[in-house]
Amino acid sequence: MCRGFQAAGIRAGIKKNQAEDLGLIVSEVPTAVAGVFTRNKIKAAPVLLDMERVAAGTCRAVIVNSGNANCCTGEQGMEDAVRMARAAAQILGLPEDQVLVSSTGVIGQYLPVEKIENALPRLAAALSPSGFLDFAKAIMTTDTRSKMLSRKVEIAGGSFSMIGIVKGAGMIRPDMATMLCYVCTDVEADAAALKKLLTHAVDLSFNRITIDGDTSTNDTVLVLANGQSGLSIKDAPVKAAFQNALEVMLVDLAKMVVKDGEGVTKLVEIKVMGAATDADAKKMADAVAHSNLVKTAFFGEDANWGRIIGALGRAGAELDPDAIDISFDDVCLVKNSRWQGIDAEADATKVLKQPEFFVTIDAHIGSGTASCWTCDFSIDYVKINADYRS
Amino acid sequence: MCRGFQAAGIRAGIKKNQAEDLGLIVSEVPTAVAGVFTRNKIKAAPVLLDMERVAAGTCRAVIVNSGNANCCTGEQGMEDAVRMARAAAQILGLPEDQVLVSSTGVIGQYLPVEKIENALPRLAAALSPSGFLDFAKAIMTTDTRSKMLSRKVEIAGGSFSMIGIVKGAGMIRPDMATMLCYVCTDVEADAAALKKLLTHAVDLSFNRITIDGDTSTNDTVLVLANGQSGLSIKDAPVKAAFQNALEVMLVDLAKMVVKDGEGVTKLVEIKVMGAATDADAKKMADAVAHSNLVKTAFFGEDANWGRIIGALGRAGAELDPDAIDISFDDVCLVKNSRWQGIDAEADATKVLKQPEFFVTIDAHIGSGTASCWTCDFSIDYVKINADYRS
Repeated sequence: MCRGFQAAGIRAGIKKNQAEDLGLIVSEVPTAVAGVFTRNKIKAAPVLLDMERVAAGTCRAVIVNSGNANCCTGEQGMEDAVRMARAAAQILGLPEDQVLVSSTGVIGQYLPVEKIENALPRLAAALSPSGFLDFAKAIMTTDTRSKMLSRKVEIAGGSFSMIGIVKGAGMIRPDMATMLCYVCTDVEADAAALKKLLTHAVDLSFNRITIDGDTSTNDTVLVLANGQSGLSIKDAPVKAAFQNALEVMLVDLAKMVVKDGEGVTKLVEIKVMGAATDADAKKMADAVAHSNLVKTAFFGEDANWGRIIGALGRAGAELDPDAIDISFDDVCLVKNSRWQGIDAEADATKVLKQPEFFVTIDAHIGSGTASCWTCDFSIDYVKINADYRS
Repeated sequence: MCRGFQAAGIRAGIKKNQAEDLGLIVSEVPTAVAGVFTRNKIKAAPVLLDMERVAAGTCRAVIVNSGNANCCTGEQGMEDAVRMARAAAQILGLPEDQVLVSSTGVIGQYLPVEKIENALPRLAAALSPSGFLDFAKAIMTTDTRSKMLSRKVEIAGGSFSMIGIVKGAGMIRPDMATMLCYVCTDVEADAAALKKLLTHAVDLSFNRITIDGDTSTNDTVLVLANGQSGLSIKDAPVKAAFQNALEVMLVDLAKMVVKDGEGVTKLVEIKVMGAATDADAKKMADAVAHSNLVKTAFFGEDANWGRIIGALGRAGAELDPDAIDISFDDVCLVKNSRWQGIDAEADATKVLKQPEFFVTIDAHIGSGTASCWTCDFSIDYVKINADYRS
C-alpha cells in the first residue's frame, strides 16, 4: 500500500499461454516522475514515447503489457504505443500525455492493440490500493516468480511508503533481455531531484547487474512520487531517508532479478578493493562478473582462481601482476597472486557450495572499490535460451 | 615437411593422463622469428621470457609443454622457464638465448622441470622432418584433435613451404583459455618484415575469433622463417605469395580452433557491411559474435533476429535503427529492421540447421565492412567448463 496509488493486472490475451499480461498503475493526483531508459541505440516505440513524456516531469498512470515488445515495428509501432496510452487515458479520464507505456516480449511483431483496448474496462475496474502484486504478475515474461518489495519509513514528522516492482532480465534472464522496474512512493519530490536520486540508485543497483551493457531495446526504470505522505524531500532528513530507502530497494530488487534468473543456482557478490581508482575497480569487478569461464566454474563449485586472474588481467585496469589477493567469503585462496595451497582450496570449495557467497579481490595498489552481483552459468541457462522462441 | 626444420612430441609425465605433453621444433640453421603475445596484463613466465628473446629477431628452437601454464608462479616460475630453455639448448648444442619456450595448462602450479629435463634426451632423439604431427599432439590440452596445416607454394624461381600448428582455446575452448600457434617456413625474411606480416595476419585471423579480448595469460603466436628455400621476401612476388599464404593459413587454423571447441556444433561467419567505418563494422560483428543470447539461439537453430538486433544496438557503432538488413546465407529475414514474415523465417531456420553458415548484416549507412567467426553455445560448453579442473 502506498497512499494515493492503485494498481491492477489482468489477462488480455496477448500472451499465448493466457497468463496475466496487462498491468496498470494510477496515481490519484499528479505525480512527479523520473525515468532511466535503455542505452541501446535500437529503442522500442514505448521507450521513445516515454522518454518524450517523462521530460514533462509529471504523469498520472503507467500501462504495461507483456508478451510483445513493440520494437522494430516502425511508424505503426509508435502509433500503437500512442493508441495504447490514449485508450488508458480515456477510460481513466486523464490527459493523454499523462499516461506512460511499457511493453516487453517478442521483438518485431505488431502490438495487438485491440486486445488491450478491449481489456481496459476490466483493467480499470480491477484497480485497487492492493493491486500491485497483480501488476507485478502481469509484467512477467519468463520470470519464475513476481518480484515486489514494499517499505514504510518512519521519520520525525510522519512516514512515507515505497512499493517497487521489477521484472527480471538483464543478462540473467535474457530471453526477452528486458528489465522493467517501477517504484511508487508517496513522498513529495520535484522531478529533477527525483531523476538525480534515481540515476544514482540505478548506478548502484541495476547497472551493477547488467554491467556488460547488454541493455535491451525496452529497459525502463520509472519512479513516481505523488506527495501524499505530506513529507517532502526538500527537508534534508526526508531526502536522506528517501535516498537511502530507494537505494536499498533498488539493490534488493536487482538481487531478486539475479536470483530469479532461470538456471541460476548461485548469487555471487564480486567485491574489488585496492584498485587504482573506483573506475578501475568497476572494470575489474565487471570483467570477473561477466566471464563465462568464471560463471561456469561457479556452477561447477570449482574455486578456479586462474580464471579470475585471467579476467582481471584483461579488464583494462592498472594492476600489479604479483600483488593480487582473492578470497571466497573469508577464505584467502590467493595471496600476492600465489595459490595458498590445498587446504585453502578445500575451504574455498566449501564456500562455493553455498547458494550465496562473496568473492573479494584486493589489488593492493590504491583505494578504489566497487561491487557487483553475478550468478553462475548453468546448463539450464543454455537450454532455456536455445529453446526460447520455439 | 619444411626444409631445415625438425620437430618432435613425446610423453614427459607432466599431464596426469599420460598423453603427449612435451614438444620441440628445431631449425638446422638460425631462423628469423617474429611473435605476437597475449595482451593480458598477467603474463605467464614463458611469455615474458619469449618477449625478451624474440626481440633479437632470431632463434633456433622452441620447446613447449602442456599440462602446466607456469603462470602466477613468481620468480621461481621465471627460473623454471629459463631452466627449461637451457636444458633444451644444452642437449641441442645451442646458445641458451636461441631457445624459446611456451607452456599451457593449469595456472598457479610450479612447473615440474625435472620431468622435462629427464625427457629431453628422448625428445631430441625423436626429432624428425616429419615430427610436426607429434608436436601438434604434445601441445594439446582439451583439444579433441591436433590441428596442423602444411602448404607448398610454387612460384617463378622455386617454391617455399609452410607448416602451421595451433592448439585451440580462445573463448571457444576456454578451460585453459590458451591459444598457441607456431608457423615454420623456409622462406627467407628479416624479423622486422616478418613481424609486420604476422601482426596483420593475426588481426585477420586469431583476433577475429578471440575478439572479446579474452586473451589468456599464455597466448603466443610465433612464425619462424629459416630461408632454406632460397626464396626471399625481399622479392616482391615472393613477399606477396608469402603474405597471402600466411593469411590464408592463419585464417584456416583459426577456423579449426573454433570448430574444435568442445560442445561446438556450428561454425558461423558474421559479415557486416554498410557500416559507417570498418571499425564500426568490427564493433557490430564482435557484439553479435560474442552475444551469449545469439550463440544459444544458434545452438537452438532458432533464427532469433531480435537478439541480433539487440546486440547491434549496444555495439557502440553508429547506426540507423530503421535501416538494418539481416540475412542467413542468402535468406533475407530482416529488411529495413522489419521482419520479412513466416516464409522467410522458415527458410532462415533451414539455414541454421547446417553445420556452417553466414549471417550477413547490412547497416546501409556507409561502406565499412568486417567479418569474424563464432560458434554456437551449447549445453556441453557449460558441462565441460563446470567440470574442468575436478
